[in-house]
Amino acid sequence: MCAIVGVFGAKKASTVAYYSLFAMQHRGQEATGISTANGERIFMYKKRGMVADVFSQETLDSMEGGCAVGHNRYSTAGSESAGDSQPVFAKYKLGEISVVHNGNLVNKNEVRNRLIDRGAIFQTDMDTENIIHLIAKSQNDALVDRIKDMIYKIEGAYCLAIQSRSKMFVIRDRFGIRPLSLGKLKDGGWIVASETCAFDLVGAEFVRDVKPGEMLIFEEGKEPLSEQIFEPDYHPCAFEYIYFARPDSIIDGKNVYEMRLRMGRKLAEETPADIDLVLPVPDSGVAAARGYADGLGVPFEMGIVRNHYVGRTFIEPTQEIRDLKVKMKLSPIKHLIRGKRVAIIDDSLVRGTTSKQIVRMLKEAGAKEVHMRIAAPEIKYPCRYGIDTPTKQELVSTKYTPEEIAKNMGADSLGFLSIEGLKESLGKDRNYSLVSFDGDYFAGGSAESPGCAGGC
Amino acid sequence: MCAIVGVFGAKKASTVAYYSLFAMQHRGQEATGISTANGERIFMYKKRGMVADVFSQETLDSMEGGCAVGHNRYSTAGSESAGDSQPVFAKYKLGEISVVHNGNLVNKNEVRNRLIDRGAIFQTDMDTENIIHLIAKSQNDALVDRIKDMIYKIEGAYCLAIQSRSKMFVIRDRFGIRPLSLGKLKDGGWIVASETCAFDLVGAEFVRDVKPGEMLIFEEGKEPLSEQIFEPDYHPCAFEYIYFARPDSIIDGKNVYEMRLRMGRKLAEETPADIDLVLPVPDSGVAAARGYADGLGVPFEMGIVRNHYVGRTFIEPTQEIRDLKVKMKLSPIKHLIRGKRVAIIDDSLVRGTTSKQIVRMLKEAGAKEVHMRIAAPEIKYPCRYGIDTPTKQELVSTKYTPEEIAKNMGADSLGFLSIEGLKESLGKDRNYSLVSFDGDYFAGGSAESPGCAGGC
Amino acid sequence: MCAIVGVFGAKKASTVAYYSLFAMQHRGQEATGISTANGERIFMYKKRGMVADVFSQETLDSMEGGCAVGHNRYSTAGSESAGDSQPVFAKYKLGEISVVHNGNLVNKNEVRNRLIDRGAIFQTDMDTENIIHLIAKSQNDALVDRIKDMIYKIEGAYCLAIQSRSKMFVIRDRFGIRPLSLGKLKDGGWIVASETCAFDLVGAEFVRDVKPGEMLIFEEGKEPLSEQIFEPDYHPCAFEYIYFARPDSIIDGKNVYEMRLRMGRKLAEETPADIDLVLPVPDSGVAAARGYADGLGVPFEMGIVRNHYVGRTFIEPTQEIRDLKVKMKLSPIKHLIRGKRVAIIDDSLVRGTTSKQIVRMLKEAGAKEVHMRIAAPEIKYPCRYGIDTPTKQELVSTKYTPEEIAKNMGADSLGFLSIEGLKESLGKDRNYSLVSFDGDYFAGGSAESPGCAGGC
Amino acid sequence: MCAIVGVFGAKKASTVAYYSLFAMQHRGQEATGISTANGERIFMYKKRGMVADVFSQETLDSMEGGCAVGHNRYSTAGSESAGDSQPVFAKYKLGEISVVHNGNLVNKNEVRNRLIDRGAIFQTDMDTENIIHLIAKSQNDALVDRIKDMIYKIEGAYCLAIQSRSKMFVIRDRFGIRPLSLGKLKDGGWIVASETCAFDLVGAEFVRDVKPGEMLIFEEGKEPLSEQIFEPDYHPCAFEYIYFARPDSIIDGKNVYEMRLRMGRKLAEETPADIDLVLPVPDSGVAAARGYADGLGVPFEMGIVRNHYVGRTFIEPTQEIRDLKVKMKLSPIKHLIRGKRVAIIDDSLVRGTTSKQIVRMLKEAGAKEVHMRIAAPEIKYPCRYGIDTPTKQELVSTKYTPEEIAKNMGADSLGFLSIEGLKESLGKDRNYSLVSFDGDYFAGGSAESPGCAGGC
Repeated sequence: MCAIVGVFGAKKASTVAYYSLFAMQHRGQEATGISTANGERIFMYKKRGMVADVFSQETLDSMEGGCAVGHNRYSTAGSESAGDSQPVFAKYKLGEISVVHNGNLVNKNEVRNRLIDRGAIFQTDMDTENIIHLIAKSQNDALVDRIKDMIYKIEGAYCLAIQSRSKMFVIRDRFGIRPLSLGKLKDGGWIVASETCAFDLVGAEFVRDVKPGEMLIFEEGKEPLSEQIFEPDYHPCAFEYIYFARPDSIIDGKNVYEMRLRMGRKLAEETPADIDLVLPVPDSGVAAARGYADGLGVPFEMGIVRNHYVGRTFIEPTQEIRDLKVKMKLSPIKHLIRGKRVAIIDDSLVRGTTSKQIVRMLKEAGAKEVHMRIAAPEIKYPCRYGIDTPTKQELVSTKYTPEEIAKNMGADSLGFLSIEGLKESLGKDRNYSLVSFDGDYFAGGSAESPGCAGGC
Repeated sequence: MCAIVGVFGAKKASTVAYYSLFAMQHRGQEATGISTANGERIFMYKKRGMVADVFSQETLDSMEGGCAVGHNRYSTAGSESAGDSQPVFAKYKLGEISVVHNGNLVNKNEVRNRLIDRGAIFQTDMDTENIIHLIAKSQNDALVDRIKDMIYKIEGAYCLAIQSRSKMFVIRDRFGIRPLSLGKLKDGGWIVASETCAFDLVGAEFVRDVKPGEMLIFEEGKEPLSEQIFEPDYHPCAFEYIYFARPDSIIDGKNVYEMRLRMGRKLAEETPADIDLVLPVPDSGVAAARGYADGLGVPFEMGIVRNHYVGRTFIEPTQEIRDLKVKMKLSPIKHLIRGKRVAIIDDSLVRGTTSKQIVRMLKEAGAKEVHMRIAAPEIKYPCRYGIDTPTKQELVSTKYTPEEIAKNMGADSLGFLSIEGLKESLGKDRNYSLVSFDGDYFAGGSAESPGCAGGC
Repeated sequence: MCAIVGVFGAKKASTVAYYSLFAMQHRGQEATGISTANGERIFMYKKRGMVADVFSQETLDSMEGGCAVGHNRYSTAGSESAGDSQPVFAKYKLGEISVVHNGNLVNKNEVRNRLIDRGAIFQTDMDTENIIHLIAKSQNDALVDRIKDMIYKIEGAYCLAIQSRSKMFVIRDRFGIRPLSLGKLKDGGWIVASETCAFDLVGAEFVRDVKPGEMLIFEEGKEPLSEQIFEPDYHPCAFEYIYFARPDSIIDGKNVYEMRLRMGRKLAEETPADIDLVLPVPDSGVAAARGYADGLGVPFEMGIVRNHYVGRTFIEPTQEIRDLKVKMKLSPIKHLIRGKRVAIIDDSLVRGTTSKQIVRMLKEAGAKEVHMRIAAPEIKYPCRYGIDTPTKQELVSTKYTPEEIAKNMGADSLGFLSIEGLKESLGKDRNYSLVSFDGDYFAGGSAESPGCAGGC
Repeated sequence: MCAIVGVFGAKKASTVAYYSLFAMQHRGQEATGISTANGERIFMYKKRGMVADVFSQETLDSMEGGCAVGHNRYSTAGSESAGDSQPVFAKYKLGEISVVHNGNLVNKNEVRNRLIDRGAIFQTDMDTENIIHLIAKSQNDALVDRIKDMIYKIEGAYCLAIQSRSKMFVIRDRFGIRPLSLGKLKDGGWIVASETCAFDLVGAEFVRDVKPGEMLIFEEGKEPLSEQIFEPDYHPCAFEYIYFARPDSIIDGKNVYEMRLRMGRKLAEETPADIDLVLPVPDSGVAAARGYADGLGVPFEMGIVRNHYVGRTFIEPTQEIRDLKVKMKLSPIKHLIRGKRVAIIDDSLVRGTTSKQIVRMLKEAGAKEVHMRIAAPEIKYPCRYGIDTPTKQELVSTKYTPEEIAKNMGADSLGFLSIEGLKESLGKDRNYSLVSFDGDYFAGGSAESPGCAGGC
């Protein structure tokens, strides 16, 4: 996932970036960083940890300037160092530059090998380093032309905010895979962010989505200049609506909560169940469960309580505690469930491990029947969006039918939303990227060298 | 609030106590502690902080024995030291003793003054110290008789677990103000806890509630011995159902979520509103909002998103951000709300400050009308249950009518559940303690020297 | 060891106490605490850790008043809680009281048992709790009389500072075992502290030592009132000069560094050695080594470097590293040592483990001969002054002759200062407590129930 | 300063590197890092902080392989990120590489500009990045040839350890400005380190110094291969003996403590004083003070006590405390000093601020006369060796004569070692780098673009 933000013309860009990243914390919790520019130099601070822990008042106060770019990083395997967090800063021929990137380049390795052949060194595995190298190695004089040079050489998904000492450049790839919106700050400056929930917190007004293939250039004393670099070939990622984005965000004109309600209603149409009660897996399944209950005319209850306290250390349980990890997070309200036929709604099914434990928990709580419903199609193709992404072999739907999975998890039935149903829910006005479901790596990748390009 | 747990005859009592306190974290987050006894000595560990942060595997492993008592402390003003956390341990004439207490003694000062006159010293302000002093000063030989001596001298609310090197004593006051239940561990031991949600996590089976006025004595190799010390005069605190307890807990035979649903339905009956949508204040208002929506036959949506990330430091916002603290925690889904007449349901109304900000937030999100409904009666009397408890002057309902409050907070209407409605919702089989609403300090206190005895 | 400080009539007593405790950090590093009084109430803060880590500016600023008592605690076994650190605070009949104590009561158990028989409870193992109980249980009306009552009931070593809301009482036992001095603050207030090095840091002027058996009473607007409670029977602990105190302190009129020089010179007289070079074990043996070199007319060099970096975690060494713990702290300058006959001077010999490693280290560094000299007599009797105090069996000098020890540690010879030599070095004007050397438990204890009373 | 270490052929190179860096902690305390190679990949861990705090057993255990390079970083201004700590790792055409560097390239900017012109990007300000770029951009096929290419392009001071997945290359510049020694591990592997004190801790045997202009190549199963790349032009930095190195280290064949003794004796010859007592500024002035006392035949005492406790926060002192920072660290033993004419010996004089406070402290302690002696010549030229390095204007000796400085600091006299005296002390067998004293930027720099090349 990951989140980016760009701020231009603010009174105190560091603070605006801070609150924007705080609002988008759900998109990445491993590391965070902000760089600001005051016309003369770039200030940078990045570190592992969550936004509210990483930044102090003192740090933000020391970061001068009206322009900022920032990033929340989704978890990556292993690395304990802050080395591969963003923004990435470099000195190059034209001065200083700082870049944040949300996405995944499908031709990363080819680009990297070509650069390495020409003597480049790479200090991290991040796409962002490719991007800076391409800018630095361009033969053009102006930064804007070097950036274009770079864009022509990369393929895949990217939302970029690039900051020099006095300007900011924002680019969204021509597929529009990851979301990016433009807002206006109350005091006259500008903001771009992965999700509109950032605007709501900082008191910015939504202006419009950044268009696929569009570049926005921010310069002191001027309105943002828009340049359409590529013909749009709109393929926004369906997973933003299914799982990634916050329900209050508006992604490419559509509210996430409402889309989830629609998916839930469509799910009720496609795989109804003869039940007494609909329960969501909190919090991710809430909206779809509301839609499902609505569609069937069956009561909805928040029948599973989510515990928000979590600890840093794991304490060995006594023998009596089975499925401890799920139980520490989720508790069923037995009173509601006992003797009932219930449907339990989740947003997606990946490995199926947690779902199995939830079904068992509901049965132990006295449910007469447990019908699991997934408000998304079967995930059959891997899509690299972070550490939790399983390989193809780990995806339970690549190996088993819904009936087999239901049997294995002890559910009385299991139903998925169909791909067609998902399309209808989201609206036929647009071609959504459905690569996890249909394997159509439209943006240049393949199942082997996965190119959903939805990465970070 | 606070929570207590007592464990007896377990294989590893420290771990059972740990997970029990973890499950009851919502009842107190300021400090936590466990003491265990192995027949020969008592081991103690207590510290400021949350359960999962305070205890390490190493600490729990070092605490030997099959008997444990534990406590979660609700916040108290000021103190940074761990001095006034529980359990309280002491050496006295018969050996070692460790005590946890959830409640509030109404004759605390009289008892304390009498003890002080006789030369006692007090190192903290905790009731628990009174209790130990009374046990230590008793002229009786057996611990059980000393405990009885003590009980006859204290008045108010108490759930006590008292541990010697080899026994455990559990007592609930005769009003049964704070909840306390008895469970059976899978491997044969026993557990008592403030809320049954602790049983669910540690895999214990609910046996029954501890009766008001009952003392349970746990001794190696024997069944728990029950002794009815006082005639029960059952007055369980209504606030457990309204706000304190976790929705999956069963308090004195009644499930909390269901009680809240009933309050919501009764609220709909008593103060209906002509609306398009019912929203809860998450998470506390969810069940009542479900009931309210049900009662009116109006759609319910989780239209306000709760953000679970919180930071330790406060960053000065830019000028544009109003009501920042509420906005960092709650975000409305504008898309759902815009142009609608909405009811927003909360569990109680104390000072009204946050509610005002929520109403403003909903109006800014485009709500045509905002009707606030409170699933509890007007709070007119202070009840000392922790740091957040306001004085009488701070309680908004002591000074203003619902109409005045609604006007001040910008709501189109404001409705409360009536006292009678609350009684009906909870069931007429029992006299609930409603002191915050009706000022009836039945247990010996008064509005001036507040004796709701619901404290901790 | 431990250190106490009392401040009265200062502008900001918390800060004066803070810097005093900082200067006396060497006397106790496990825990520290300060309480202040402003005439109306007592403020308290104590915690495990070192002075500079425990207190923040904010904490000190919140502690109002011109009177403070403070304490540094030497390590005690096991306890991870802050429960048994000082000051100890209590409410009792006359109000609030806070006490710090440096010493060891030899009749602690008798006193405690008597109190317990009368119904007292003890929450810690500290002598200080006894002291407060005795004050609280006194039948007298005035605090000063209650304190006297208490003093008549305790035996052993004590330097006490007792604070009520508006007064301060300071008492030193009649043997004067632990040091205590009186100083005058530049702005007119008063200070008492275990060591005069505290005065130097806070800019106070040394006035005089508190006399054995003396009580000082500090009251607003009056000069300190002195009352001689007991006839002095002066037995200052020789270990203050040998090891405990900082070399710049003046203990009972004698400078510590100078005493150590004298012990070194006397050691040269008593056990000379035919050597080329004198080396101290840094930093504790420096002054005595200077004296020893002086006495023999042999060069002195700081031939062992002390490393001041220490880490919290222990890293498993590779096989090649022997005696790692000593080597991480001490490194010989081979160049100086190679081929030389050296004397290595330490302040005392307890278990002999480290000394053995040092001898081996010097031999490996090429020393031709290594003669160990101890600037104190053989320790033959345990003296409880903290966690590191060995039992009688662990004291190497109770089981072996100097020749046997030398052989075992691979030294070419081993010499101790004689008891007579120590007496001469310290001066015959006073009877020093030499209990560790001669077993004379003058203050009421015995080798079995050790009563050196030098504890903390 | 900074320290580097290289380990090859060890059983567990990470642990050997850890203890080596621990022993060299005095050379740099801001950040530390180690990378290891196991033939297949490079493992890296680096972080701000001291060696013993940064590495855990778990981290070291996870770093596989028999080859390691490590670095301690001296403080640099501002940066809070770990970004510019070492080792620096990169992927380039031949695979993976990790580099540590101690020194300062005088043609850094020219090299960097040339690289930037060719499209390189720089993510830090470290010389080390230049070095990796030059290796990566070389047209040669073998790594060894690329390294030589690089070496021909850089000028200044460098001790380098370069690690590929299976080899290690160590190079010392032709001036031999910074020290570097070769040792043999007990189990057969090799170690190179900035100071021999590292060998002593890990139990390695000193073999020889790495020669100026020499490259050592370490390869599995072979003896280290030596190649003399440049004709040596030996100019070891005199500051290693004066201040940087640990007294037990042997730098280029000469023991540091002994050199300091010699400087002290020479100082006595050149600027004697009519005094009663010689005191060192601890710990840096100890050896020279010993030599000075020796030369004059005057007693030496450790008359200033150094306090090793330091805190993280600064507490506002009360008005009475002057010169607090020095007094928190150093305390005079008044008893020794009162009425005496003393010489106080320090290793060097930079700004003179602390010295002034020390002189005042000694006068306040009662010294009749205070003669300050500096065991080094006047520092008249800046030498960039870290954050504390003052600009030319801040160097007190560039603006004032010794007499003027003495007067300003309240000393009765001030004497420096002459340049000639320093040369004689160190020995005329070698041309030491004396740039701070004589301004002779032999290695290509100048006073304006300072090229002492002693940096890090």
